[in-house]
This record gives sequence, C-alpha cells and structure tokens, in this order.
Amino acid sequence: MPQPLTDLVAAVGADAVLTGDATLPYRRDHADGTPVGDPLAVALPSSTEEVAAVVRICAEHALTMVPQGARSGLAGGANAIDGAVLICLERMRRVLELDAVDQVARVEAGVLTIDLARAATDAGLFYPPDPGSWEISTIGGNIATNAGGMRCLKYGVTRDFVRELTAVLADGEIVRVGHRTVKGVAGLDLVGLLVGSEGTLGIVTEATVALLPAPAPSAGLSAAFPSAAAALAAADALVADARRPSVLEFLDAGCIAAIDALIARGDAPGPRLPVAEALLLVQSDAADAVGDVRHYAAIAAAHGATLVETADDPERVDALMDVRRLLHPALRAIRGASLNEDVSVPRSQLPALLEGIAALGEELGITIVTGGHLGDGNLHPTVAYDADDPADVARATRAYLAVIELALRLGGTASGEHGIGSLKLPAIGAELGPRVHEAQRAIKRALDPRGLLNPGRKY
Amino acid sequence: MPQPLTDLVAAVGADAVLTGDATLPYRRDHADGTPVGDPLAVALPSSTEEVAAVVRICAEHALTMVPQGARSGLAGGANAIDGAVLICLERMRRVLELDAVDQVARVEAGVLTIDLARAATDAGLFYPPDPGSWEISTIGGNIATNAGGMRCLKYGVTRDFVRELTAVLADGEIVRVGHRTVKGVAGLDLVGLLVGSEGTLGIVTEATVALLPAPAPSAGLSAAFPSAAAALAAADALVADARRPSVLEFLDAGCIAAIDALIARGDAPGPRLPVAEALLLVQSDAADAVGDVRHYAAIAAAHGATLVETADDPERVDALMDVRRLLHPALRAIRGASLNEDVSVPRSQLPALLEGIAALGEELGITIVTGGHLGDGNLHPTVAYDADDPADVARATRAYLAVIELALRLGGTASGEHGIGSLKLPAIGAELGPRVHEAQRAIKRALDPRGLLNPGRKY
Repeated sequence: MPQPLTDLVAAVGADAVLTGDATLPYRRDHADGTPVGDPLAVALPSSTEEVAAVVRICAEHALTMVPQGARSGLAGGANAIDGAVLICLERMRRVLELDAVDQVARVEAGVLTIDLARAATDAGLFYPPDPGSWEISTIGGNIATNAGGMRCLKYGVTRDFVRELTAVLADGEIVRVGHRTVKGVAGLDLVGLLVGSEGTLGIVTEATVALLPAPAPSAGLSAAFPSAAAALAAADALVADARRPSVLEFLDAGCIAAIDALIARGDAPGPRLPVAEALLLVQSDAADAVGDVRHYAAIAAAHGATLVETADDPERVDALMDVRRLLHPALRAIRGASLNEDVSVPRSQLPALLEGIAALGEELGITIVTGGHLGDGNLHPTVAYDADDPADVARATRAYLAVIELALRLGGTASGEHGIGSLKLPAIGAELGPRVHEAQRAIKRALDPRGLLNPGRKY
Repeated sequence: MPQPLTDLVAAVGADAVLTGDATLPYRRDHADGTPVGDPLAVALPSSTEEVAAVVRICAEHALTMVPQGARSGLAGGANAIDGAVLICLERMRRVLELDAVDQVARVEAGVLTIDLARAATDAGLFYPPDPGSWEISTIGGNIATNAGGMRCLKYGVTRDFVRELTAVLADGEIVRVGHRTVKGVAGLDLVGLLVGSEGTLGIVTEATVALLPAPAPSAGLSAAFPSAAAALAAADALVADARRPSVLEFLDAGCIAAIDALIARGDAPGPRLPVAEALLLVQSDAADAVGDVRHYAAIAAAHGATLVETADDPERVDALMDVRRLLHPALRAIRGASLNEDVSVPRSQLPALLEGIAALGEELGITIVTGGHLGDGNLHPTVAYDADDPADVARATRAYLAVIELALRLGGTASGEHGIGSLKLPAIGAELGPRVHEAQRAIKRALDPRGLLNPGRKY
C-alpha cells in the first residue's frame, strides 16, 4: 500500500478509507456533463480532529483534496480529481447543541439540512434556508456553495444564518472563525469568505447557525397567467408590497408542460396542471398569513391571473408547492440529461432575460425552459439534452453558455446559489474581470499557497 | 513644495489638498483617548477616479493612507498617522441612482447615512441600518466598520444591505465587486471582506445598497423595571416571540440617572425620567405594529415592569426613543471624556455580563454604566473619566480592557459594531487567536503587500 494510504488508514481507520471501485459512488455530484477524475482514495473522517489529520497527511504528500458533503451540488464542485483524496464528511452528522436563548444551533458539517431544520422546529425555532436539495444536502455543502432556496426573498441565503465556523485550513490547522454573538466585527469577515468558497480555502467541519422564532403557519397561493409578462408584472407588485411574501416562485409554459407530463405518465403524484403560460407560487408566513394571501390573490387577479387557488391548511399549502419540487426531475426526464442554469439578474431585467432566452432557443433550435426564484431574480433556465448525442451535447453547451452571457449583459451573474464548481468556470473570468479575478486568486494563495484544496474550481 | 504634494495638487486641484493647520479638523474621530499623528496632507477627492489618482501617488511615494468618512467613528480608526495622507471622501455625496424595481440605491461613499435613508423614504422604500451617528456618519464609514444600530435585531447590520462596491485597491486600481442582484455566488465574497475592514484593504468609493418596501409606521413602548434582571428576563421573552420587535434597547440605572441629569440641567429637552433600575425601549414596524406593542406591553408587565408607556403616533414614538439618543452626550457629560465599550455576548450571557461589570466597577472604584442593543446582545458599557487626571485615565483604561476580557470569557467579542480601530487593538490578538490572526494578516498582505492602507489598525 502506498505511504499516503497507510498514513490515512493509521489516522482514521481502515473502514474510513476507500479505494478502487469503492470510491465510485463518491466520484460525482448532480451536475450532468462535468468532468470526473480517478481519485487516490475517499477518506471518511468522523471528527474535526480526523479531518485535520487527513489534511496534514495530504499536505505532507502534496495530494490534492476535494471536500464533499452529500454531492447534491449542481456545478461539479465536488467531483473527483485525478489522484485526489476525496474528504467526505458524511459521518459527521451530529447536532451538537441547540440553544433557545441564544437562538443558535451548533452542528457538524455533515448534518443534513432537513435534519437541522427539524431539530430547530422541534425546539420551537426555525432555520429558514431551504435549498431545493435540502432533504439530501448537508449543511457543510450549503455553506460551501452559499446555498439559497425558496425563502431567500424574505430571509436571505445560507450566509445570512452562519455565525461561527470551525474549519481545517490547508496546512491541517484547526481554526474557529466568526462569532456566536448576533453581531461581531473583530477581525475581517472570514466566515463570509469561507461561505461560498466551494472548499477552496478550508474544510468547514462545524457550524453555529442562527435560528429565528418559529413563524406562523404558512398560507399560500398558486396563480396561472395568460402570459409570462403578466406574471412578471404581478411579481413586481408583490415584491413592492410591504407584506413581503416568504416564497415567490415562477414556472414558465415549458416547466408547466414538463411537470404535467410527469404527472400524466404516473411518474409523480398529484392533479394535472392547468394549461397556462406561467404559474406563480406565493406564500406568506407572517402573523396574518391568511390575510396576506388574500391580498396577494387580489394582486394576481388585478394583473390578469386566470386561475387563482389559495390554501391555508398546511397539507394543501404543501401540495401547491409540490409542483415546484417536481421541476428538476421533470426537466431531466425530457431528454435524460439537463444543464441547469442558475443565473440571477436585477429584477428590472427579468422581462429582457426571458425574452432573450426565448430568442436564443429559437436561434439554436433547442428548448430552454425556465423556472425558479422570481422574487429575488434568480432563475434556473434548463437545457434538456441527450447525453449520447454529441451534436445535442454541443448545442446544449452552446445554449448554456449563451444564457450566462445574456445574464451578464443584463447586469446579472452566472450563479445565484449553485456555485461555479467546474461547470461555470468558463464564465467566471468575464464576470469578475481581470483585476478582481486576480485579487481572488491572491486570497486563495494567501490561505492555500500550494493550491491543494479543490484546485481548478471556483476561480 | 515636496513632490508628493505637487503631485496631489496636480491630481485633485489645490483646493482639495490641505496641509498644516488646515488639517487639524481632520485629525481625529470621536474616540476619546486614542493616539493622533501629524499627517502630511488631507486630500479631498471628488470622484472615484480622483481617489484612484491620489492612491497611485501615495503608492508611488510609499505614503501611508488613512481613508476617512465623517470621522464619527468611536475606535480611532480614522485618526491621522504621522506622515500619512488622509483621504477624506466628504465631497463625494451624490445619490447616483434609486431603483424601485430592483430595490437598490447607488450612492457615493461620502453620502450621509440619513440622506440615503431619506432618499429611500422619498421613493417609498426603506434603508434599515440606523447607527447612532446616522445624522453625521457617511455610508462609506458605515461600510468600513460594518455599522449596526437600533434595528439590527430585526433587519441585520450594514453588511446585510451592501450588494456591490466600487473600491480603489492599494495599487490605485479601481474594482467593482459584488452583485447588484439579490443573490450571487460567482467569486469569493469580496464585499463581505471589504465591509468591516476599516479601510485596510481598499477605499470604498461607491456602494449599491439593498432597500426594502417601506414598513408600516412604528409603534413603541417604554417600560421601567425594578431590577436589571427583570428587564433581561422580559427581553428574553420578547426576543423569543414570533412578533419580532424592530427595536429593543436597554438603559441601566446609571444611564437613566445620567440622561435625567442632562434633562434636569436643561442641556436637553424632554420630561424627567422615572427612577428605575432599568428601562426597555421597544418598537414594532410590522403590519400590526399597534397590536404588537400591546402584546409587548403585556410581556413587560408579566415580568414586573412598574411603568409601561405605549405610543402609536409617530411623534410620541420618536419622543420615547429620544431618551436613548441622549445616552452618548449624557455619559460624556459626567466627567468630560468617556471610553465607550462595544462588547457583544451571546444573549444567554447578558446577566453574567451585567453582574461582572458591576463587580469590576466596585473592584476598580469606578462607575461603569451600561446601555445599548439588548435585543442582539450588543451593549455599550461606558467608563466616564477626566482626561486631565492621569490616575483617572489609567483607571478608566484598566476598566475598559477588563470589560472586554470579561466579554471574551463569556464567549463574546470586543466589538459588535464600532470596529477595532486603534482603541481595541490590544484586545484583538486574544480574541482571534494566533492562527486566525495570522490568516487575516495574510489576506491583508495579499491585497496590500506594502501595508500602506491604514496600517496599525484592525489587526
């Protein structure tokens, strides 16, 4: 056995070091079409100290490291790299502390997002970030990508809820950064720097996250529109309202048809969807949620909604939202594989984004369907393709990059919440510009001088 | 005229370069007792390009630079350094853009916080951060310190509202970092890194900040308690409530007496204060603010409040809060000068903090009075002293550092919102620990290799 493997086994035990075919399930995340390497090993540490030991061994042997949570990412950021040690935190799943007075939870990085959310709920508290993958994603992965979700419009993103982090730096040293307190400005904001750094600056092993008092039960509505433009105008009015929705999601005609097809085939439960050009899904969890939703329904009707359905019992509210949760499988089902955009534009540019996407689809002879977080201008245009057809792959890739270029032209960004990973690396230089790109790399070099942590991602 | 001054005059004009006695008003911020140097000059650039020109000249001549807003800071972070060029942005006061659909304002860094807030209000929008100094502070200074204020409990700090920054780096290059969009994860979070960096990584010249729809008119209450412990228990109940207050401020017996003395002397308007051991000031700006405040009043009464006054017309609500705004002048008036703490502790440690401060005051024979942002655990214990009495200065300094040590022992931080500047520099090493301190300095070196930007502050 090569020396690094012997050292790893000595550090974390033989059952926590996988090689050969045993590494296969750990080699890729959920991003279709991203490159995957052949790793040296997978390490499955069970504690911060074990992560540090693994990192020290990798540093000693100059081995590339790829930190992993649940590999539910959509940008290829956790895929294996040739010769790398994949450091997967799936065994670090403990909720270490839940404090109702300080309104924080302290958890290991491998805790599933939904388990953290449930632990908070059980204590009468609330962890708002709810990325689409929250039933399978880990909080460490959410932190690495600064994951968003459906409640960002009202509550913000993962970053807004991270107070303090324990992390292992590239040299194997364990640090604790940030503050358990609500506010704290001693030192530079290393928490903000680590959140969203996609495992390139350190490996987060533990997090203290902020919780809120449990909100009122949500009420919701679904509104069908005769045109995307009408839905966008209604959304503008909803975002301008002092009664801020907790959720404001959008599905275009292509999304509606794809989800309906899934249901029609019996591949998903639920009633068939209305034929419409656009659907808005809106929720409130404010004290007067029922009154809010009545108010939203009037706004939707005033903007030409043809069918408005409201709900205030929890099961019905959930059922309205289930449609949105079927989006990802529905789009993948169209042609077997899909490239998922994650562009964000200033809200005033949403009409131009949707028009531009339609024009691109026509120009390239490919269908691009769009749904997502309309409230915060973060949409997920999706290009379905057949991975076995090289021409289709090329066309899809072209469309994928063209949508990003369009978003940048409109003052937007290539990624609102999924991260850059390897998938969006071709776009990052244009978005950041040379001086900012170099400043980011200088920070990377300052914290990881040999570039061992997840190289070739993010920058 | 020495060459650097000739160059500065050529770059920004003779009327924008001050030397000699003309620099006197620019030499210090509001932090009593902090060291002040003798600067080479004050530069008053009028645009980002002029700031860049000034920085390039300083870089060429290896001159230290001190960025300044309104010098309303409380940590000595904007004080002059010997031989430095003070780069003051007071001439950059334009609100460049206010967009109601994108819900952002774009402003020059020298805009007064209150002018930004008013511009937002005039457009039916809302800029929540309200640092105590907001009538005189600049948004650039707020960004440099990551300023807080009274509304943090509900809305968060300055960082939470900064989307995009234009900054001049140490080499004079102009960069734009961050995103105008609500969400964006392309690249490391350089906005978060610049916010709170106290002018040590770059000079922020322009900011795009997020705005919210204007909230409902606030309702408020003032509640007097027979003990600080009773007020703390009431605050715990208020923070645990789903109807989150927008403001939750605290004044201890010493603060109440100092403010009352100011009013009694006729140095401030308003009715005399009740004799009480603690006062809570609470507001709501939710849709049902009046109902919220009635609910808060019941909570206060249930925790032993002896006198509860509520208000719902804007003038009366403001009048209740005016008491809090007198705190800083009232405390300074006690002995002419004051050292203002800015400690933050986990909320569960607030009773221990107040008890520890009382014990310290007795031990050192000095009065420490405490008020501040109880809702988020960020208090401003204040040590009044006579600047002409060396023994008093020494005692005050000892007390000041002892309170910080106490806060750190309780899991807190030396600074919740004022920054480290030079005043708290002796405490920063203990708080960060050697490895994190070194990581911060490595980032500083990566962005400012020669250490020309505000050296000797923050780290």
